[in-house]
Amino acid sequence: MSCLNNIKQTLREENVDGFLITSAVNIRYVTNFTGSESILLITPGCDYLFTDFRYVEQARQDIPWIKIVEKKISLMRTICGKLKRLKIKKLYVESLYLTVYQYREIIGNKEGIRIIPTQGIVERYRKRKTYQELEKIRTAIKIAEKAYAGTREKIKAGLSEKQIADFLEYEIRNQGGEKSSFEIICAAGQRASLPHARATERIIQGKEAVLIDWGVCFQFYNSDLTRVRFVDRISPAYKKIYQIVLDAQCFAIDRIKPGRKASDVDSAARSYIEKKGYAKCFGHGVGHGIGLEVHEGPTINSRSKEILEESMVFTVEPGIYIPGWGGVRIEDMVLITSSGCEVLSQVPKKIKEIAV
Amino acid sequence: MSCLNNIKQTLREENVDGFLITSAVNIRYVTNFTGSESILLITPGCDYLFTDFRYVEQARQDIPWIKIVEKKISLMRTICGKLKRLKIKKLYVESLYLTVYQYREIIGNKEGIRIIPTQGIVERYRKRKTYQELEKIRTAIKIAEKAYAGTREKIKAGLSEKQIADFLEYEIRNQGGEKSSFEIICAAGQRASLPHARATERIIQGKEAVLIDWGVCFQFYNSDLTRVRFVDRISPAYKKIYQIVLDAQCFAIDRIKPGRKASDVDSAARSYIEKKGYAKCFGHGVGHGIGLEVHEGPTINSRSKEILEESMVFTVEPGIYIPGWGGVRIEDMVLITSSGCEVLSQVPKKIKEIAV
Repeated sequence: MSCLNNIKQTLREENVDGFLITSAVNIRYVTNFTGSESILLITPGCDYLFTDFRYVEQARQDIPWIKIVEKKISLMRTICGKLKRLKIKKLYVESLYLTVYQYREIIGNKEGIRIIPTQGIVERYRKRKTYQELEKIRTAIKIAEKAYAGTREKIKAGLSEKQIADFLEYEIRNQGGEKSSFEIICAAGQRASLPHARATERIIQGKEAVLIDWGVCFQFYNSDLTRVRFVDRISPAYKKIYQIVLDAQCFAIDRIKPGRKASDVDSAARSYIEKKGYAKCFGHGVGHGIGLEVHEGPTINSRSKEILEESMVFTVEPGIYIPGWGGVRIEDMVLITSSGCEVLSQVPKKIKEIAV
Repeated sequence: MSCLNNIKQTLREENVDGFLITSAVNIRYVTNFTGSESILLITPGCDYLFTDFRYVEQARQDIPWIKIVEKKISLMRTICGKLKRLKIKKLYVESLYLTVYQYREIIGNKEGIRIIPTQGIVERYRKRKTYQELEKIRTAIKIAEKAYAGTREKIKAGLSEKQIADFLEYEIRNQGGEKSSFEIICAAGQRASLPHARATERIIQGKEAVLIDWGVCFQFYNSDLTRVRFVDRISPAYKKIYQIVLDAQCFAIDRIKPGRKASDVDSAARSYIEKKGYAKCFGHGVGHGIGLEVHEGPTINSRSKEILEESMVFTVEPGIYIPGWGGVRIEDMVLITSSGCEVLSQVPKKIKEIAV
């Protein structure tokens, strides 16, 4: 609840009458409400959750300290009515999560209101994880590791990508995960050059590499890992690329500590991959924060202006993708400690460990 | 592709230089592109898909007839550059799917542009399903039916809601579904009064009703069904409520045919439930269109202004929810035919069929 109190303090200091939170994830973070399709209004005094019939009872159970307002005709009209009654003149909104439609509804139904677009007010708090959040993330990782351990031996030529993904999904739930954090990526052979390939009916062939990118959701917190698995011996060409990516990841992880620029972590991996001649084959940032969302702050790429802080959690996932040939990505999750970082995930990744 | 051509024609007729589509689902409908985090610009001439590194190769494979533009610093900046080069002065946007942030980026980076908020341009086409879409929806329903048939006998006292949901999820994939269309609702006993309850670790007790709401995604198209299952004999009180809901659903389905108001379908179920004394226990609309999204047009509730048309597909799902006691909802999917409707889903629902 401290985030909510801090935001109320900010509103008072900045002389703002209210803050309308339209991101479901930010609402969950601030209030612990677990429903969806709701909007939160924070004011220096009372706070209000606008929701529909389906979530009213749940909201009253989840968050008795917040006033629950059931929508009438439309959620936005109900909110505008409340803005009028509270005589709100200056309103913060989340510019990334307020639609043009919602903006126009407010402007059109509440005379004389001043809407001030903001960015990152709640997200700023979410970057640094509390102990309770970390415990959930650690569990989400642990379940992901166990599920993969139960799946990796099953990856064989003759099965389809989708069969592997379905089995992994089953194992995730079997091990206590609520669900996958995202659709499992399982890409065999040259399909691994598509960084976000869906699992298809394509049959895995002998001598192919299979790239698997999977995550687990546990009590709304997520994990996100990637490994490559071989169904046969590894070709020398693949071995070379794999080792470059693995070394690049190691260099990036070595660079992590509080006070460092996030862009330095990216550059540690990127400059090594470039030096080896694969500059054009690594087109995404080296990592991303993770928590209630699979992708959240801090941003870890070459243009990031963020400075690393203790208690941040993010992925480190360099890759090399060669269209028509295939791809390698190795992804782990790290927690920034007082002096460096702790690698939270422990799935085997040495060359000798990834083949049958 | 006819939707794309129709939109281009509309732009020409209305003298608009471009239409920026920011809804991922609308992009999929218009282009068949299966990636995410992309934005589509339709002009009377060429069309452009703005995407990032991860989806460039996939987009070139999926939709060779559309120009693929890889984002530079940010997607919106890349788009603004293109709007300038194309000298676009009058631009349609999707007000429900353009954020205030994106709106401000366009206004701030492209001088003299006139942004015209629109609603439902693509969604209007999506309401009526083509033969190809219907085939996918029928398959999504068929898989849902098979998965439930394999699960219903397993619903027993002593198991948790989550165990049932996990098994159903496994069966969905086992039967050829890609995944659940949404998190499976499995609510036992009085928890069934929460219309959108998540499956919890709560153990199912003897004599309880278990409400299950599940859907299947097949080639991006969805199904959505709800049934109640008893682990024991049904109490007379529950039997009475169940029969009211079943009859209400029947009355609603009987009312469906082209030319009717959608609100008439809602009122057929609602007035019956009201007459039986449960007016306050049915707080949601009687149904919703379904297709690429689980909830899409047409809206089937008391305030809907829609007129039913042939080839629309939607759910019919009246319910009675009594806090502290429990709830009943029965949900099927229907297709509007030339003279009435076809009930697409066939899961047993007579009173004698829902108990062990």
